[in-house]
Amino acid sequence: MTGGAVEISPVGRVESSLVDRSAAPRQPDEGAPEAWLVIDERYLAALDGLTAGDQVVVLTWLDRADRDTLVVHPRGDLTRPPTGVFATRSPDRPNPIGLHDVEVLAVVGPRVHVRHLEAIDGTPVLDLKPVLTADR
Amino acid sequence: MTGGAVEISPVGRVESSLVDRSAAPRQPDEGAPEAWLVIDERYLAALDGLTAGDQVVVLTWLDRADRDTLVVHPRGDLTRPPTGVFATRSPDRPNPIGLHDVEVLAVVGPRVHVRHLEAIDGTPVLDLKPVLTADR
Repeated sequence: MTGGAVEISPVGRVESSLVDRSAAPRQPDEGAPEAWLVIDERYLAALDGLTAGDQVVVLTWLDRADRDTLVVHPRGDLTRPPTGVFATRSPDRPNPIGLHDVEVLAVVGPRVHVRHLEAIDGTPVLDLKPVLTADR
Repeated sequence: MTGGAVEISPVGRVESSLVDRSAAPRQPDEGAPEAWLVIDERYLAALDGLTAGDQVVVLTWLDRADRDTLVVHPRGDLTRPPTGVFATRSPDRPNPIGLHDVEVLAVVGPRVHVRHLEAIDGTPVLDLKPVLTADR
Protein backbone atom coordinates (compact mmCIF):
# COMPACT_ATOMS: atom_id res chain seq x y z
CA MET A 1 0.00 0.00 0.00
CA THR A 2 2.66 2.50 0.94
CA GLY A 3 4.80 1.85 -2.10
CA GLY A 4 8.52 1.50 -2.31
CA ALA A 5 11.25 2.49 0.07
CA VAL A 6 13.15 5.69 -0.57
CA GLU A 7 16.89 6.07 -0.27
CA ILE A 8 18.33 8.98 1.65
CA SER A 9 21.97 9.95 1.52
CA PRO A 10 23.10 11.99 4.51
CA VAL A 11 24.38 15.45 3.56
CA GLY A 12 26.76 15.59 6.50
CA ARG A 13 27.51 14.56 10.08
CA VAL A 14 27.26 15.98 13.57
CA GLU A 15 30.51 16.74 15.38
CA SER A 16 29.76 16.97 19.10
CA SER A 17 31.17 16.30 22.53
CA LEU A 18 28.13 14.06 23.14
CA VAL A 19 29.30 10.54 22.39
CA ASP A 20 26.83 8.34 24.22
CA ARG A 21 23.09 8.03 23.63
CA SER A 22 22.42 7.51 27.34
CA ALA A 23 24.07 10.84 28.09
CA ALA A 24 22.22 12.74 25.38
CA PRO A 25 19.54 15.06 26.74
CA ARG A 26 16.13 14.27 25.33
CA GLN A 27 15.34 17.89 24.62
CA PRO A 28 17.63 20.86 24.04
CA ASP A 29 16.46 22.72 27.14
CA GLU A 30 17.99 19.91 29.17
CA GLY A 31 21.54 21.02 28.49
CA ALA A 32 22.52 20.15 24.92
CA PRO A 33 25.94 21.52 23.97
CA GLU A 34 27.15 23.52 21.03
CA ALA A 35 28.09 21.34 18.09
CA TRP A 36 29.16 21.44 14.45
CA LEU A 37 27.34 20.20 11.38
CA VAL A 38 29.99 19.13 8.89
CA ILE A 39 28.42 19.23 5.45
CA ASP A 40 29.77 17.12 2.62
CA GLU A 41 31.63 19.27 0.07
CA ARG A 42 29.31 18.25 -2.74
CA TYR A 43 26.42 19.99 -0.95
CA LEU A 44 28.39 23.14 -0.11
CA ALA A 45 26.37 25.38 -2.46
CA ALA A 46 23.21 24.50 -0.53
CA LEU A 47 24.60 26.47 2.46
CA ASP A 48 24.73 29.77 0.51
CA GLY A 49 22.82 32.41 2.42
CA LEU A 50 22.86 30.63 5.78
CA THR A 51 24.28 33.03 8.36
CA ALA A 52 24.94 33.49 12.05
CA GLY A 53 21.76 34.19 13.96
CA ASP A 54 19.53 32.09 11.70
CA GLN A 55 17.13 29.73 13.45
CA VAL A 56 17.07 26.40 11.66
CA VAL A 57 15.56 22.95 11.99
CA VAL A 58 18.21 20.26 11.59
CA LEU A 59 16.93 16.88 10.45
CA THR A 60 19.08 13.95 11.52
CA TRP A 61 18.99 10.19 11.11
CA LEU A 62 19.02 8.63 14.59
CA ASP A 63 21.11 5.69 13.50
CA ARG A 64 21.20 3.97 16.87
CA ALA A 65 17.41 3.87 17.24
CA ASP A 66 15.38 0.65 17.23
CA ARG A 67 13.17 0.81 14.13
CA ASP A 68 10.98 -2.14 15.22
CA THR A 69 9.60 -0.31 18.27
CA LEU A 70 5.96 0.75 17.83
CA VAL A 71 4.92 1.26 21.48
CA VAL A 72 6.88 2.76 24.40
CA HIS A 73 6.43 3.97 27.94
CA PRO A 74 6.67 7.76 27.46
CA ARG A 75 10.11 9.05 28.47
CA GLY A 76 11.00 5.54 29.65
CA ASP A 77 8.75 5.95 32.70
CA LEU A 78 7.34 2.47 33.41
CA THR A 79 4.52 3.91 35.53
CA ARG A 80 3.08 5.56 32.40
CA PRO A 81 0.89 3.53 30.07
CA PRO A 82 2.39 2.17 26.84
CA THR A 83 1.82 4.64 24.04
CA GLY A 84 2.25 4.43 20.28
CA VAL A 85 5.48 6.04 19.13
CA PHE A 86 3.60 8.41 16.79
CA ALA A 87 2.16 9.99 19.97
CA THR A 88 5.62 10.37 21.55
CA ARG A 89 9.03 11.80 20.69
CA SER A 90 10.80 8.48 21.37
CA PRO A 91 13.88 8.09 19.14
CA ASP A 92 12.83 4.45 18.68
CA ARG A 93 10.29 4.46 15.81
CA PRO A 94 10.00 3.08 12.26
CA ASN A 95 11.73 6.06 10.62
CA PRO A 96 13.91 7.64 13.31
CA ILE A 97 14.31 11.14 11.93
CA GLY A 98 15.37 13.66 14.57
CA LEU A 99 14.15 17.28 14.49
CA HIS A 100 16.37 19.80 16.24
CA ASP A 101 15.65 23.51 16.52
CA VAL A 102 18.99 25.27 16.75
CA GLU A 103 20.53 28.70 16.32
CA VAL A 104 23.36 29.10 13.82
CA LEU A 105 26.42 30.60 15.53
CA ALA A 106 28.72 30.61 12.50
CA VAL A 107 29.16 29.15 9.03
CA VAL A 108 32.80 28.37 8.17
CA GLY A 109 33.07 26.77 4.73
CA PRO A 110 31.26 23.45 4.99
CA ARG A 111 31.03 23.62 8.79
CA VAL A 112 28.00 25.06 10.58
CA HIS A 113 28.39 25.87 14.27
CA VAL A 114 25.10 25.56 16.18
CA ARG A 115 23.83 26.03 19.71
CA HIS A 116 21.90 23.39 21.70
CA LEU A 117 22.03 20.32 19.47
CA GLU A 118 20.89 17.19 21.31
CA ALA A 119 22.43 14.72 18.83
CA ILE A 120 25.45 12.55 19.46
CA ASP A 121 28.76 12.71 17.64
CA GLY A 122 28.65 11.11 14.20
CA THR A 123 24.88 11.35 13.76
CA PRO A 124 24.04 11.67 10.04
CA VAL A 125 22.52 15.00 9.00
CA LEU A 126 19.72 14.76 6.42
CA ASP A 127 18.64 18.36 5.91
CA LEU A 128 18.62 21.91 7.28
CA LYS A 129 15.61 24.19 6.93
CA PRO A 130 15.08 27.72 8.22
CA VAL A 131 12.41 28.12 10.83
CA LEU A 132 9.46 29.59 8.96
CA THR A 133 9.29 33.32 8.46
CA ALA A 134 7.12 35.22 6.05
CA ASP A 135 9.69 35.74 3.31
CA ARG A 136 11.78 32.58 2.85
CA MET B 1 32.66 11.14 4.35
CA THR B 2 28.97 11.02 5.13
CA GLY B 3 28.75 7.25 5.05
CA GLY B 4 26.13 5.06 3.50
CA ALA B 5 22.62 5.81 2.42
CA VAL B 6 19.74 4.87 4.67
CA GLU B 7 16.55 3.26 3.50
CA ILE B 8 13.23 4.66 4.61
CA SER B 9 9.95 2.86 4.15
CA PRO B 10 6.92 5.17 4.21
CA VAL B 11 4.49 4.35 7.03
CA GLY B 12 1.50 5.61 5.06
CA ARG B 13 0.15 8.00 2.46
CA VAL B 14 -1.65 11.33 2.29
CA GLU B 15 -5.23 11.30 1.00
CA SER B 16 -6.12 14.83 -0.07
CA SER B 17 -8.12 16.85 -2.55
CA LEU B 18 -4.82 18.51 -3.57
CA VAL B 19 -3.64 16.62 -6.63
CA ASP B 20 -1.26 19.00 -8.34
CA ARG B 21 2.00 20.41 -7.00
CA SER B 22 1.42 23.73 -8.73
CA ALA B 23 -1.86 24.13 -6.85
CA ALA B 24 -0.42 23.19 -3.47
CA PRO B 25 -0.03 26.13 -1.14
CA ARG B 26 3.53 26.58 0.05
CA GLN B 27 2.52 27.09 3.65
CA PRO B 28 -0.58 25.96 5.53
CA ASP B 29 -1.79 29.47 6.23
CA GLU B 30 -2.25 29.87 2.50
CA GLY B 31 -5.32 27.66 2.41
CA ALA B 32 -4.30 24.02 2.82
CA PRO B 33 -7.30 21.72 3.11
CA GLU B 34 -8.19 19.01 5.55
CA ALA B 35 -6.70 15.66 4.60
CA TRP B 36 -6.27 12.09 5.80
CA LEU B 37 -3.11 10.25 6.70
CA VAL B 38 -3.71 6.59 5.85
CA ILE B 39 -1.28 4.55 7.92
CA ASP B 40 -0.21 1.10 6.84
CA GLU B 41 -1.85 -1.60 9.01
CA ARG B 42 1.51 -2.93 10.16
CA TYR B 43 2.20 0.39 11.93
CA LEU B 44 -1.27 0.66 13.50
CA ALA B 45 0.00 0.14 17.07
CA ALA B 46 2.19 3.23 16.69
CA LEU B 47 -0.99 5.37 16.60
CA ASP B 48 -2.09 4.31 20.12
CA GLY B 49 -2.66 7.38 22.22
CA LEU B 50 -2.99 9.83 19.33
CA THR B 51 -6.28 11.71 19.76
CA ALA B 52 -8.35 14.54 18.37
CA GLY B 53 -6.95 17.91 19.36
CA ASP B 54 -3.32 16.78 19.33
CA GLN B 55 -0.88 19.03 17.52
CA VAL B 56 1.55 16.95 15.50
CA VAL B 57 4.38 17.35 13.03
CA VAL B 58 3.86 15.15 9.98
CA LEU B 59 7.01 14.23 8.09
CA THR B 60 6.47 13.47 4.42
CA TRP B 61 8.63 12.46 1.48
CA LEU B 62 8.15 15.07 -1.27
CA ASP B 63 8.47 12.52 -4.03
CA ARG B 64 8.06 14.97 -6.91
CA ALA B 65 10.88 17.22 -5.76
CA ASP B 66 14.13 17.66 -7.70
CA ARG B 67 16.89 16.24 -5.50
CA ASP B 68 19.70 17.72 -7.61
CA THR B 69 18.74 21.32 -6.84
CA LEU B 70 21.16 23.04 -4.44
CA VAL B 71 20.37 26.72 -5.15
CA VAL B 72 17.02 28.43 -5.80
CA HIS B 73 15.44 31.83 -6.09
CA PRO B 74 13.48 32.02 -2.82
CA ARG B 75 9.78 31.35 -3.40
CA GLY B 76 10.48 31.19 -7.14
CA ASP B 77 10.91 34.99 -7.26
CA LEU B 78 13.54 35.66 -9.96
CA THR B 79 14.19 39.15 -8.58
CA ARG B 80 15.59 37.59 -5.40
CA PRO B 81 19.20 36.41 -5.33
CA PRO B 82 19.92 32.68 -5.68
CA THR B 83 20.10 31.10 -2.24
CA GLY B 84 21.24 27.69 -1.02
CA VAL B 85 18.33 25.37 -0.39
CA PHE B 86 19.41 24.82 3.24
CA ALA B 87 18.56 28.52 3.77
CA THR B 88 15.11 28.12 2.17
CA ARG B 89 12.05 25.89 2.49
CA SER B 90 12.15 24.95 -1.20
CA PRO B 91 10.77 21.42 -1.73
CA ASP B 92 13.61 20.91 -4.21
CA ARG B 93 16.62 19.82 -2.10
CA PRO B 94 18.86 16.75 -1.66
CA ASN B 95 16.56 15.04 0.87
CA PRO B 96 13.09 16.46 0.29
CA ILE B 97 11.46 15.74 3.64
CA GLY B 98 8.39 17.88 4.28
CA LEU B 99 7.50 19.11 7.77
CA HIS B 100 3.84 19.90 8.35
CA ASP B 101 2.37 21.21 11.60
CA VAL B 102 -1.21 20.00 11.75
CA GLU B 103 -4.02 19.48 14.23
CA VAL B 104 -5.51 16.00 14.56
CA LEU B 105 -9.27 16.14 13.99
CA ALA B 106 -9.97 12.42 14.42
CA VAL B 107 -8.29 9.02 14.47
CA VAL B 108 -10.38 6.28 12.87
CA GLY B 109 -8.54 2.97 12.85
CA PRO B 110 -5.48 3.50 10.61
CA ARG B 111 -6.81 6.81 9.28
CA VAL B 112 -5.85 10.14 10.83
CA HIS B 113 -7.90 13.18 9.85
CA VAL B 114 -5.89 16.41 10.01
CA ARG B 115 -6.43 20.10 9.41
CA HIS B 116 -4.31 22.28 7.09
CA LEU B 117 -2.00 19.79 5.39
CA GLU B 118 -0.16 21.32 2.43
CA ALA B 119 0.82 17.98 0.83
CA ILE B 120 -0.61 16.55 -2.35
CA ASP B 121 -2.61 13.35 -2.66
CA GLY B 122 -0.46 10.23 -2.53
CA THR B 123 2.50 11.85 -0.78
CA PRO B 124 4.35 9.24 1.31
CA VAL B 125 4.19 9.78 5.08
CA LEU B 126 7.42 9.02 6.96
CA ASP B 127 6.57 9.83 10.58
CA LEU B 128 4.25 11.65 12.98
CA LYS B 129 5.53 13.34 16.12
CA PRO B 130 3.66 15.35 18.73
CA VAL B 131 4.58 18.99 18.98
CA LEU B 132 6.79 19.23 22.04
CA THR B 133 5.19 19.57 25.43
CA ALA B 134 6.79 19.04 28.79
CA ASP B 135 5.54 15.51 29.37
CA ARG B 136 5.67 13.50 26.13
